Amino acid sequence: MAKQRKLKLGVNISGVGNSMSVWRHPDVSTDASVSLDYYRQQALKAESGKFDLVFIADGLYINEKSNPHFLNRFEPLTILSALAAVTSQIGLVATLSTSYSEPFTVARQFSSLDHISGGRAGWNVVTSPLEGSAKNFGKGEHPAHELRYRIAEEYVQVVKGLWDSWEDDAFVRDKESGVFFDPGKLHTLNHKGEFFSVQGPLNIGRSRQGHPVVFQAGASESGRDLAARTAEAIYTGHELIEEAKLFYQDIKQRAAAYGRNPEEVLIFPGINPIIGRTQEEAELKYQEVANLVTIQSALDYLGRYFEHHDFSQYPLDEPFPDLGDFGANSFRGTTDRIKREAKELNLTLRQAAIRAATPRGNFIGTPEAVADLVEQWFKEEAADGFVIRTTVPRALDDFVDLVVPILQERGIYRTEYEADTLRGNLGIPIPANRYTKVTIAN
Amino acid sequence: MAKQRKLKLGVNISGVGNSMSVWRHPDVSTDASVSLDYYRQQALKAESGKFDLVFIADGLYINEKSNPHFLNRFEPLTILSALAAVTSQIGLVATLSTSYSEPFTVARQFSSLDHISGGRAGWNVVTSPLEGSAKNFGKGEHPAHELRYRIAEEYVQVVKGLWDSWEDDAFVRDKESGVFFDPGKLHTLNHKGEFFSVQGPLNIGRSRQGHPVVFQAGASESGRDLAARTAEAIYTGHELIEEAKLFYQDIKQRAAAYGRNPEEVLIFPGINPIIGRTQEEAELKYQEVANLVTIQSALDYLGRYFEHHDFSQYPLDEPFPDLGDFGANSFRGTTDRIKREAKELNLTLRQAAIRAATPRGNFIGTPEAVADLVEQWFKEEAADGFVIRTTVPRALDDFVDLVVPILQERGIYRTEYEADTLRGNLGIPIPANRYTKVTIAN
Ligand SMILES: Cc1cc2nc3c(=O)[nH]c(=O)nc-3n(C[C@H](O)[C@H](O)[C@H](O)COP(=O)(O)O)c2cc1C
Ligand SMILES: Cc1cc2nc3c(=O)[nH]c(=O)nc-3n(C[C@H](O)[C@H](O)[C@H](O)COP(=O)(O)O)c2cc1C
Repeated sequence: MAKQRKLKLGVNISGVGNSMSVWRHPDVSTDASVSLDYYRQQALKAESGKFDLVFIADGLYINEKSNPHFLNRFEPLTILSALAAVTSQIGLVATLSTSYSEPFTVARQFSSLDHISGGRAGWNVVTSPLEGSAKNFGKGEHPAHELRYRIAEEYVQVVKGLWDSWEDDAFVRDKESGVFFDPGKLHTLNHKGEFFSVQGPLNIGRSRQGHPVVFQAGASESGRDLAARTAEAIYTGHELIEEAKLFYQDIKQRAAAYGRNPEEVLIFPGINPIIGRTQEEAELKYQEVANLVTIQSALDYLGRYFEHHDFSQYPLDEPFPDLGDFGANSFRGTTDRIKREAKELNLTLRQAAIRAATPRGNFIGTPEAVADLVEQWFKEEAADGFVIRTTVPRALDDFVDLVVPILQERGIYRTEYEADTLRGNLGIPIPANRYTKVTIAN
Repeated sequence: MAKQRKLKLGVNISGVGNSMSVWRHPDVSTDASVSLDYYRQQALKAESGKFDLVFIADGLYINEKSNPHFLNRFEPLTILSALAAVTSQIGLVATLSTSYSEPFTVARQFSSLDHISGGRAGWNVVTSPLEGSAKNFGKGEHPAHELRYRIAEEYVQVVKGLWDSWEDDAFVRDKESGVFFDPGKLHTLNHKGEFFSVQGPLNIGRSRQGHPVVFQAGASESGRDLAARTAEAIYTGHELIEEAKLFYQDIKQRAAAYGRNPEEVLIFPGINPIIGRTQEEAELKYQEVANLVTIQSALDYLGRYFEHHDFSQYPLDEPFPDLGDFGANSFRGTTDRIKREAKELNLTLRQAAIRAATPRGNFIGTPEAVADLVEQWFKEEAADGFVIRTTVPRALDDFVDLVVPILQERGIYRTEYEADTLRGNLGIPIPANRYTKVTIAN
């Protein structure tokens, strides 16, 4: 008998917000992106709602047209380490790019976060969609899409190898004999691959989770493939249940094809819940925020997904321009969706830009209506869980206070944490250390 | 009139200890190097003693002969970010190497720590003494001593440039007009140098300290020069007051020669205080710990400073071997000192190894005797402050409980924090942003 699935929940804390303009709302504190108090308060709120995890997105390139939150925000590993000290059960997932970092350092920092938090760390593997990133790291050219994913694949293998440097029981620490560790349980990786050459061992022991949980957030063919081979959870951007179901099936099938247990690859669509006492109140909340955007900011925001393309060259109230293949090397999944929706819903450039600038999706309405959607997506296998994004102020508070109790009552969501590690709550087993010899009792 | 100098204090928290064997002591918790509780308790103790800062040392290469603490310890930026959330006034100084990291990431992580801590971050710039580090970072060869310092020099300039990307008042955040920032106060570094090419801007604003405080910890000619040009505080390893005075004068003179105010380059020798009710009790405490080392471990420890040289090839009870120039590319300051002391004090290899394996120095005795030494070093300008290292268990507790009150009574050490930033307490001004136009009122 399969164990009963339970819904998982995360929150993407994003300071002054995901949109270009929500910072202008009277209820938003304009320094939220660099306020420890704000991050702590959000994390504790999510923990009070028994959320599995806090998720921190990231980017490595800005210019003056970037989203306000991107201009001046915390670096993910540092803010999550701070949150580790003031929370006790919620998972802490940091986005970090494999295109502009060193596997030794990244393995170490995530392991350190896992030790600090007592087993609550996760790594969201991204390959950096923005071309400009290369210029901040002395690289001539931003690697093309396929190449980035080949690098990422090897990178993740190296990091996992480093995490196995020490077997779980390597540190004997016997004061009497003076033996601190068992040299037979210390392993040198000696990786020499196409892109990386890393000797090891890592200078930190295996953490409580064995490996921090590996998330992935790319939606293209190569992104899915990387996820199916190496990730334990996937953050996605689908807004329509049909699309989400296809994606869900696709990932689970790919994982199975690679010999993995599909239950150990969890799918988390990001949603933007907007809750009102009535449907109308919720719609008003969305409009209040959407109206804060200027059309110029909306065009800039759209441009960000398309390699900082200048959309002001097109007429605003004509159909969304035909961009051909343009945008395919950046946020491919997202740009494909924008193009497709513009076509299907017959959007003008203005409409598409405003829609992009203030993400909404379908999770808008009364607590019951939103809970119904959550339950439907979960039961129909469009999602194993959701990451809550903040489109309107107090989105997390409303979700925790009003939607979570309904989900608990319906029996699809926990009332108490099952564990105090992220893996434990997600139900994903600790990976065996590749070097540990399994003794079979007979 | 010059303002009255006040003594500064820091603590080097080092888990299971600086020595090979103190972990065997009954009062040491053997997982201290990866215990958040231990680090928190030490940081809070130091904060209760009004210490300026917590200092975290670091290294990027281990092998099976490394000091137990080095094998399995927290990464500095992550543990200090965690401590930022549970302390409120003490500074947080992390060691980070310029030889194996990216300036954009490092500028960002330190700035993020400075934001998280409300202005308490410091960066101890090191160049990585250990040859083996190169193998963990896919580099063919570890850069030679002089080259490492040339790289470091440019690296620090790049980081400081990135920290100035945004002027202090760049973020207008005017909800009414919709202006989040003033584009005239956003600056793109466009650095193209010998070793680095970094465009910017940094994706985080200037932090409360303007720049996190820059520490340096190399004692060679090139190390001193880098310090005098770019550092605001220096961590040193002198044990004899005469040596320390020469070093002190030398650095202050170099700083002045570079046009800097010598009062804004503070010198912090690391000391290993061992406190007893009597001199004998203190000596016994040292011996108790020194006796825990095996001669093999002591030789390994010594070897670590000399590029993992195998000292077991020499007779133990003959004079310390003549190593010529050997060891000069690693911890040059330290190896020079070991060689010199072995000669001056006529030490056998065994004696030199045990002395190296359990650092002691001269700060051993009653609280009054230790306070006398501290006062002497401070008043005679051998030091502006000290970093307390833990040779025996409870070294920090004893220092805070027994020595600090004496120093306070003598009026050379604060009874309350002057500020809640590290700069404020150290008395080092906030660096002006290089781009900010100074308006002179007339
Ligand atoms: C929901 C979602 C969230 C993402 N979050 C980030 C992020 O925080 N940082 C980042 O650099 N990329 C992020 N990405 C981008 C992906 O990592 C990836 O680089 C991009 O989508 C292009 O790859 P793809 O073509 O496989 O989708 C995200 C993508 C999706 C779908
Ligand atoms: C007191 C002291 C503490 C040091 N701490 C570190 C450290 O934590 N990590 C590190 O890589 N190097 C450390 N170093 C080494 C220096 O950064 C430097 O690499 C080494 O001393 C060689 O440079 P030098 O010849 O200029 O001394 C330290 C040096 C001294 C003197």
